[in-house]
Amino acid sequence: MLSYATKAEMQSLFRSVSNWGRWGDNDERGTLNYLTTECAVAAAKLISTGESISCARNFPVDPGPENPTPALHHMVIGGDDPCAHGIPGMEVSLDFIGIAYHGLASSHIDALCHVFVDGKMYNGIDATEVRSTGARRNSIMCAKDGIVGRGVLLDIPRLRGTEFVDPTKPVTADELSAAEKSQDMRVGEGDIVLISVGRDAHRAQHPPKPGEATTLAGLHPDCIPWLHAREVSVLGSDAVHDPVPSPAPIENWPIPVHMCGLAAMGMHLLDNLYFVDLEAACVRAKRWKFFFTLSPLRIARGTGSPINPIAIL
Amino acid sequence: MLSYATKAEMQSLFRSVSNWGRWGDNDERGTLNYLTTECAVAAAKLISTGESISCARNFPVDPGPENPTPALHHMVIGGDDPCAHGIPGMEVSLDFIGIAYHGLASSHIDALCHVFVDGKMYNGIDATEVRSTGARRNSIMCAKDGIVGRGVLLDIPRLRGTEFVDPTKPVTADELSAAEKSQDMRVGEGDIVLISVGRDAHRAQHPPKPGEATTLAGLHPDCIPWLHAREVSVLGSDAVHDPVPSPAPIENWPIPVHMCGLAAMGMHLLDNLYFVDLEAACVRAKRWKFFFTLSPLRIARGTGSPINPIAIL
Amino acid sequence: MLSYATKAEMQSLFRSVSNWGRWGDNDERGTLNYLTTECAVAAAKLISTGESISCARNFPVDPGPENPTPALHHMVIGGDDPCAHGIPGMEVSLDFIGIAYHGLASSHIDALCHVFVDGKMYNGIDATEVRSTGARRNSIMCAKDGIVGRGVLLDIPRLRGTEFVDPTKPVTADELSAAEKSQDMRVGEGDIVLISVGRDAHRAQHPPKPGEATTLAGLHPDCIPWLHAREVSVLGSDAVHDPVPSPAPIENWPIPVHMCGLAAMGMHLLDNLYFVDLEAACVRAKRWKFFFTLSPLRIARGTGSPINPIAIL
Amino acid sequence: MLSYATKAEMQSLFRSVSNWGRWGDNDERGTLNYLTTECAVAAAKLISTGESISCARNFPVDPGPENPTPALHHMVIGGDDPCAHGIPGMEVSLDFIGIAYHGLASSHIDALCHVFVDGKMYNGIDATEVRSTGARRNSIMCAKDGIVGRGVLLDIPRLRGTEFVDPTKPVTADELSAAEKSQDMRVGEGDIVLISVGRDAHRAQHPPKPGEATTLAGLHPDCIPWLHAREVSVLGSDAVHDPVPSPAPIENWPIPVHMCGLAAMGMHLLDNLYFVDLEAACVRAKRWKFFFTLSPLRIARGTGSPINPIAIL
Repeated sequence: MLSYATKAEMQSLFRSVSNWGRWGDNDERGTLNYLTTECAVAAAKLISTGESISCARNFPVDPGPENPTPALHHMVIGGDDPCAHGIPGMEVSLDFIGIAYHGLASSHIDALCHVFVDGKMYNGIDATEVRSTGARRNSIMCAKDGIVGRGVLLDIPRLRGTEFVDPTKPVTADELSAAEKSQDMRVGEGDIVLISVGRDAHRAQHPPKPGEATTLAGLHPDCIPWLHAREVSVLGSDAVHDPVPSPAPIENWPIPVHMCGLAAMGMHLLDNLYFVDLEAACVRAKRWKFFFTLSPLRIARGTGSPINPIAIL
Repeated sequence: MLSYATKAEMQSLFRSVSNWGRWGDNDERGTLNYLTTECAVAAAKLISTGESISCARNFPVDPGPENPTPALHHMVIGGDDPCAHGIPGMEVSLDFIGIAYHGLASSHIDALCHVFVDGKMYNGIDATEVRSTGARRNSIMCAKDGIVGRGVLLDIPRLRGTEFVDPTKPVTADELSAAEKSQDMRVGEGDIVLISVGRDAHRAQHPPKPGEATTLAGLHPDCIPWLHAREVSVLGSDAVHDPVPSPAPIENWPIPVHMCGLAAMGMHLLDNLYFVDLEAACVRAKRWKFFFTLSPLRIARGTGSPINPIAIL
Repeated sequence: MLSYATKAEMQSLFRSVSNWGRWGDNDERGTLNYLTTECAVAAAKLISTGESISCARNFPVDPGPENPTPALHHMVIGGDDPCAHGIPGMEVSLDFIGIAYHGLASSHIDALCHVFVDGKMYNGIDATEVRSTGARRNSIMCAKDGIVGRGVLLDIPRLRGTEFVDPTKPVTADELSAAEKSQDMRVGEGDIVLISVGRDAHRAQHPPKPGEATTLAGLHPDCIPWLHAREVSVLGSDAVHDPVPSPAPIENWPIPVHMCGLAAMGMHLLDNLYFVDLEAACVRAKRWKFFFTLSPLRIARGTGSPINPIAIL
Repeated sequence: MLSYATKAEMQSLFRSVSNWGRWGDNDERGTLNYLTTECAVAAAKLISTGESISCARNFPVDPGPENPTPALHHMVIGGDDPCAHGIPGMEVSLDFIGIAYHGLASSHIDALCHVFVDGKMYNGIDATEVRSTGARRNSIMCAKDGIVGRGVLLDIPRLRGTEFVDPTKPVTADELSAAEKSQDMRVGEGDIVLISVGRDAHRAQHPPKPGEATTLAGLHPDCIPWLHAREVSVLGSDAVHDPVPSPAPIENWPIPVHMCGLAAMGMHLLDNLYFVDLEAACVRAKRWKFFFTLSPLRIARGTGSPINPIAIL
């Protein structure tokens, strides 16, 4: 039994959850292979009220401890100069957005090229395939037709009877199983698993102070074999899956869920989602499973994309 | 009967399709009000094979006649320097994207603040509410929870028995009705109507030459009352709805569908979609209606968003 | 005698140093009018060793308390993909920079359109002339041919016998006069005056902590009439002229030097310069006057420009 | 004698003008080593009228055949919302600029890391030292203290008695010598040589048509040994030195002046300068030598910088 505390144990875990070669040597979809059209059809049957709920945060233009390189939102033409095009009768406004979407502030999807372990990404591809001109392999384009399936929300604060997960006490695999049971469902093949750590409730009580190091609750590495065994297709969090900072650092393994999830399993990750509205709706509906869909921007050679995933109840 | 040829006629048309005040003086959703949760529930029943299809073009980084201000895609950290963060074992790549998404190249949604007529946008709000710091009214945030409903594809080249719509012969309201019939369906309240002009087939045969003025097929203004009468919620096109250039210019009314659609009706527009894959799937499935969903990035004060809409059959 | 403590006194000061109309109603150069070609010729005679010294900070890409919206520096093509252009034998690297250069981090020049007082900028022009599409009046283009003249460095820490100016004790007009004398020179018409507050020595001893509010030393408002009387052409600082935060806030006058300097006098400001190297060279040379030159980027409608001013001894 | 027509000849030329090792194995300044402080002192004596003249084009925000990826200039706060900061009395406007400055539109300096030949840049350094995260060697920072010296303008159209250099007839070394003589001067060690091809006169008569391939006049490769022999420090052009397209293409040597100048000689290049004003002033003054200065932005790891060089007569 691994304690997930040493480099050697992590290497062993990495190998044990590796899907390299599982779907062919040229596969770039990883665990999206679990997410079949049958999953989408089954998920559609979960739509009952038709209520759609965004699971994204606002485009993060405001600087702050969790957003050191804010996104750009600039008007190109505003309502004070709408005729700037010079075409009679043409009155418009338009704007520009810019974002380095990885990090702790933007709701985004990580492509499988986002993280390397020992110089390799998913399916054994070399890191150097991600060049200064973009990712030639494992880009986000494998998800260009959207990700559609059953979303299941595991509400860990609800399980613990707290408002939020204490950043020093990561979520364990046993808790994932317990959350399933308490929410009367079972995570299965192809599910899009959303694990709430109550980030926003935590932030409301502990607003990030300028001088304070960021803390975000996350998963214990023992969740990794659980996610692997359940054949989860995509993993989402209101934080970033890996605790920040790690309460139990492992030598050379700073972000185990990212490293094993993206690089070994080929499991796309959704970071910095927003679950406050969804949680409330789930409680109202007394169910934590729903139709879930997101579509990355079609960024050829991209390492991911900003997203606005939608849950439909 | 209007011929839609003069400024006076367009002003009359504008008034006749205006929804200002229809859903309250503070409404910012416009015809999204037609798109109820019931529409989403009904649309979900259209999911049969579970096949999902992107209706977006790739992020437009390549300059060209239709893309004079290309989007930016820059690596921030590539695979040649994955340890740049300096945290032992942290090996990542990440990138930056930037885009002024309006125009002819990017698949995007127009917010209701994108176009003004005589200094006013939807619901009579002054253009000056769109400031250099962003849109205080009628921003894209009204669609933050996603747009979910029945998509219907009106395939005009198929109706005409051609590969693409001739840019000099705009699509008429009669053709919209004829397309419905030939595709065995009827557009109704809340539908997300996608009108294909075969832009990509046209481009394949007439690749835009550097020196050539851009031409894009579009709708005749007489489609506007048709869309209004049918209570369409959202209108999408593989081009930009208004012909470029107009084969029958109207004084001071350069873009009638944008002007009446956005400013009078409050109907969000989806520009520069990609229908080649969807059309093929519809032909295979012998149906042109499907579950359709898109979610803009949550750009507070944004005039729209790049999007990747998904049709699910 | 004004104490420069109340709104009324500031309004009076503003009027007394106003150059509105002085060089014509259409003038956009302000105190650059003092900087004649004769000044440049005279300044050239100060070149003796030929040593040139940058007075700029590095392009500020690193986030921090003084740099909440860092500049962008992205490679477009790096040395890992030099043949990306696809032209045989063409091997290049190239990059992209982006910056909102105002603020506390970037060495930049403020154009006269950067600051308004009661809705007016220099020469009585309305703020609304700076539109979402750029500044139609008082842009940086008035300095497109470069700023060339005599630079004089007033080294206030040296005068005070300290390493840096205490942010709570602003530099006074009397100190400017005393610094002149102690450095054996007299500021005169057309001079480019650089006032060192020892920002970098202060930072070395008090590195900005993440949680700490930024403090920057600056000038007391009584320096304003001094600068006006001496007919200074351009004012530079290693900080931002106005203390941050003000140790003696004045109602509605948060940044008196910017407000009186830019809007009343029409005096361009150079913010966030770097004087460590220049100070050392001046001490070595036992003189604090030198040939000084800077040239803004030719940003039509720009509110300023990032700069790298050069002192030549 | 080389004809500069074959790959072998170019390789031979490259070796013959190579300065690799000349100023030490770690040198990153290349021919800037010729530009001593004595040069600056001597150049200062050329200042007689004090007239300063910009040699830069405007920041290139407008798309066009020569500017496929236009620079960005966005307002962040305009005069329609000057109080956006929310600080009482603080009324400002500010803007953002962004640019990938290499190419045919922006006045910029090429750092020595901009071009590689057979995977090597100046002084034999490997191209891979320019990573996705920036240039670790041969960046523009070697010129951070400005480039100051004697500028000499060789006006080739004037020599030829034409308005502009015909793009199909590159400037030869003999013409450089003839221009010197006709302008009564001799290029010597450390000079900053500016070679005018009359680009703007050419453009005025042949405005670039959208469909037309760009043509720019440039230098014949036989100018390279001439520049090497004269120990030129920096080379500037109103075009890009190498003809576009080459009227006599050499296998695998698409841009000989860039390849030999930057990579072999270590000579910084100034591209896309603007000489119309300078030429007129030189004619008026009957001299073509002057004090010349430019300072790149201090972009750590940058491959160059946008610039606004100034000539002072």
